[in-house]
Amino acid sequence: MSTERIHPVVLSGGSGSRLWPLSRAGYPKQFLPLAGENSMLQGTMQRVAGSQFAAPLMICNDEHRYVVAEQLRTAGITANRIILEPIGRNTAPAVAVAALTLLEQQEDALMLVLPSDHVIQNEPAFHAAIAQAEKAARQGHLVTFGITPNKPETGYGYIQQAEELSVSGVHKVARFVEKPDFDTAATYVASGEFLWNSGIFLFSAKQYLDELKAHHPKMVKACQAALELAENDLTFCRLNKEAFANSPSDSIDYAVMEKTTHAAVVPVDMNWSDLGAWSALWDITEKDSDGNASHGDVLLHNTRNSYVHADHALVAVTGLDDVIVVATDDAVLVANRDNAQDVKKIVDTLKEQGRYEHTLHTTVHRPWGNYRGIDLGERYQVKRISVKPGEQLSLQKHYHRAEHWIVVKGTALVTCGEKEFLVRENESTYIPMGEVHRLKNPGKVELELIEVQSGGYLGEDDIVRLEDGYGRTQ
Amino acid sequence: MSTERIHPVVLSGGSGSRLWPLSRAGYPKQFLPLAGENSMLQGTMQRVAGSQFAAPLMICNDEHRYVVAEQLRTAGITANRIILEPIGRNTAPAVAVAALTLLEQQEDALMLVLPSDHVIQNEPAFHAAIAQAEKAARQGHLVTFGITPNKPETGYGYIQQAEELSVSGVHKVARFVEKPDFDTAATYVASGEFLWNSGIFLFSAKQYLDELKAHHPKMVKACQAALELAENDLTFCRLNKEAFANSPSDSIDYAVMEKTTHAAVVPVDMNWSDLGAWSALWDITEKDSDGNASHGDVLLHNTRNSYVHADHALVAVTGLDDVIVVATDDAVLVANRDNAQDVKKIVDTLKEQGRYEHTLHTTVHRPWGNYRGIDLGERYQVKRISVKPGEQLSLQKHYHRAEHWIVVKGTALVTCGEKEFLVRENESTYIPMGEVHRLKNPGKVELELIEVQSGGYLGEDDIVRLEDGYGRTQ
Repeated sequence: MSTERIHPVVLSGGSGSRLWPLSRAGYPKQFLPLAGENSMLQGTMQRVAGSQFAAPLMICNDEHRYVVAEQLRTAGITANRIILEPIGRNTAPAVAVAALTLLEQQEDALMLVLPSDHVIQNEPAFHAAIAQAEKAARQGHLVTFGITPNKPETGYGYIQQAEELSVSGVHKVARFVEKPDFDTAATYVASGEFLWNSGIFLFSAKQYLDELKAHHPKMVKACQAALELAENDLTFCRLNKEAFANSPSDSIDYAVMEKTTHAAVVPVDMNWSDLGAWSALWDITEKDSDGNASHGDVLLHNTRNSYVHADHALVAVTGLDDVIVVATDDAVLVANRDNAQDVKKIVDTLKEQGRYEHTLHTTVHRPWGNYRGIDLGERYQVKRISVKPGEQLSLQKHYHRAEHWIVVKGTALVTCGEKEFLVRENESTYIPMGEVHRLKNPGKVELELIEVQSGGYLGEDDIVRLEDGYGRTQ
Repeated sequence: MSTERIHPVVLSGGSGSRLWPLSRAGYPKQFLPLAGENSMLQGTMQRVAGSQFAAPLMICNDEHRYVVAEQLRTAGITANRIILEPIGRNTAPAVAVAALTLLEQQEDALMLVLPSDHVIQNEPAFHAAIAQAEKAARQGHLVTFGITPNKPETGYGYIQQAEELSVSGVHKVARFVEKPDFDTAATYVASGEFLWNSGIFLFSAKQYLDELKAHHPKMVKACQAALELAENDLTFCRLNKEAFANSPSDSIDYAVMEKTTHAAVVPVDMNWSDLGAWSALWDITEKDSDGNASHGDVLLHNTRNSYVHADHALVAVTGLDDVIVVATDDAVLVANRDNAQDVKKIVDTLKEQGRYEHTLHTTVHRPWGNYRGIDLGERYQVKRISVKPGEQLSLQKHYHRAEHWIVVKGTALVTCGEKEFLVRENESTYIPMGEVHRLKNPGKVELELIEVQSGGYLGEDDIVRLEDGYGRTQ
């Protein structure tokens, strides 16, 4: 058996709409600390940080690049690469790009493909399964991880296992099946032959590409072109948009696993959850004696088996069982725990209505820090802006608004027209309409300021970037 | 029959805790536009604005004086007097004070006592009942209004009617009964003899006082002293606190109606509600085809027979029946419609925990306008301040905070130390710690400004008032 390390490939593609309003497209669930102190992305990375693993390769939406970089930094993870998708093409092309990247580094690279938004509470079981899967993968199998089902879940696809391979604990795949109805799911669970399809895979990069070339040559070509024409910048690699857009969109399952004759499955019981709905979060969260899981400033009276998350305001619940309540500063969800999947329908309605609450949070993350809208009037708005030490916003100007900045923490280095000066805590400055300006945190602690914008048009798009440290001037 | 006009006496005493979080002690339900465009206080006043009524006499909590004055002003109501209670003593002393005040104006004054937080949807029926009650009152009866019950409500006291008086439609009272249990309430409703006790009365001021003197001489003396020592200021009359505190606390029912031999009741069916809980608001509100009553930015999916009130954020509900959801910017209530009374238990818990959400809203009303907390940090807070045209805050200073003011609407006249100057829209000024300052709106439109406070202590009590137009310098 090889002593080469396994390459984790972490996929961050989903928008997590079933965990709305906490999870939104601009900052979806994998970045949220929903199941502990760390985000699920960080948890995923930390589970594969042992000596048997190489540095992880990350594939994410271009828009999330700074969130990903920041989360890896705070978790102490150094990525092999962070590959940026300018457009989503499902998992098969993403993994193809990862495989092509790894093959350049190591001919016999094994890749462990991991969604970034799963929770695994039994880590030793996971690692044991990886060790078994590794053996099978080195023998030429494409191994998928099958979760031992504990209830007739209708939200997952299933894998029927066949005979055990020569590698103990790893089975041939008899067939993949789509999400079943409840009765079918019940017979699957009773049979003992069926496993939940977790979306976790372990296989050789070369072999994955060979399979893909055989079944989807166009996809491989598009991915190769996207990589060849990519912009590379330190650890980031931004795929070429036009080239990547030429790739068909497909999942690993459809594109490869259901077609290959080398599919294998390793059954594993590891307290796994994909947190596909608020009810799943209730399942894995510690509960009080009434069966309630709560987070934040929550007051419960005569309430049972409920999940209550207060992100912002006090949330009081009385006389209800089996409800989900999630309150953020701009959206409140109240749902039946038994139909928690229906949250997606709310999000669909928001999309149809052209609203923003399914994509943006009131706190918006930027490479230099974040801002949060705290008040909005007819001709003004108020934001709290946080700038990380050493970071700066772009050199910019606005045609339709003036800005008042009051520093409430730290020190700002302000450029306004030809002048450059410091603004300290409890000091303020004024940026006239049309004036070129820049905000920088030259210090060692977070800079916080209150910005009052005043003008006839206050949209985020009234910004002319003259110079930017994060490549946003085009 | 006399052609003298009836004197409406409107009582504003309750804190409306069952309609939390919209209703809070500092700004309770009678001031809220819960059942239409006007507040319930305004609705109460407008129902007795016809030519058969004299100008209303208002009795309210001292702390609510400017809210009451402002609501009367915007509704175009001129009060006879606004009597301020420095301390609550239940309804019997409040009505005694009103009776004493009216007797000075007119010896045979008839008073119509009205709680300020009721809804009456059938106004002609109400006026017809008043006309009947007036006849009986002029004949020496103390008339209470009994609502024809339409369900076995356990939240109200009941009145059993006896034979009809010589005045058509008015009955002698057989007895008053306390809130019954459900089964008793059901037999009451079935009997046809029982009516809900509405807390609305019509009687002669002199006769009420005579009854009170006979049964509670100490109460009448305390009320007389409180009036004699009262501070009078335009339409306001602030009762003397020490004197009024000597009055026993009691209700009209206990103190007079259950003791007098002249009690009468006029049965009336007028779509009355005391809005004693959110479920009562659901009852009287127009509903969609699924039985939902909603207000504000609400999204419903697979939800029936629910009341959803979005005051601040978007509220989405899915898969639930018979729920109450009320979301404000600092508190969210989710309750079972069948146990909506239990909201009081939430409020009790907030009291026990020494919190503020049951007394204060984030928007705080002041005689000069209002302010709203919009952000709060470790050493700063941000408020939006609105000052009415012509109004000004007190001349004041703070020991622990400096203030930045940015005008976002209108024009401010600012006093800061020895200087006085105008600050216009999109201009700002700075008030150093310890500096004497004043804010005035000299203009004809509302003044709005963003205040950023900065300092080590930011409590409302860090204020030294040197001069105040509203008597708040002591």
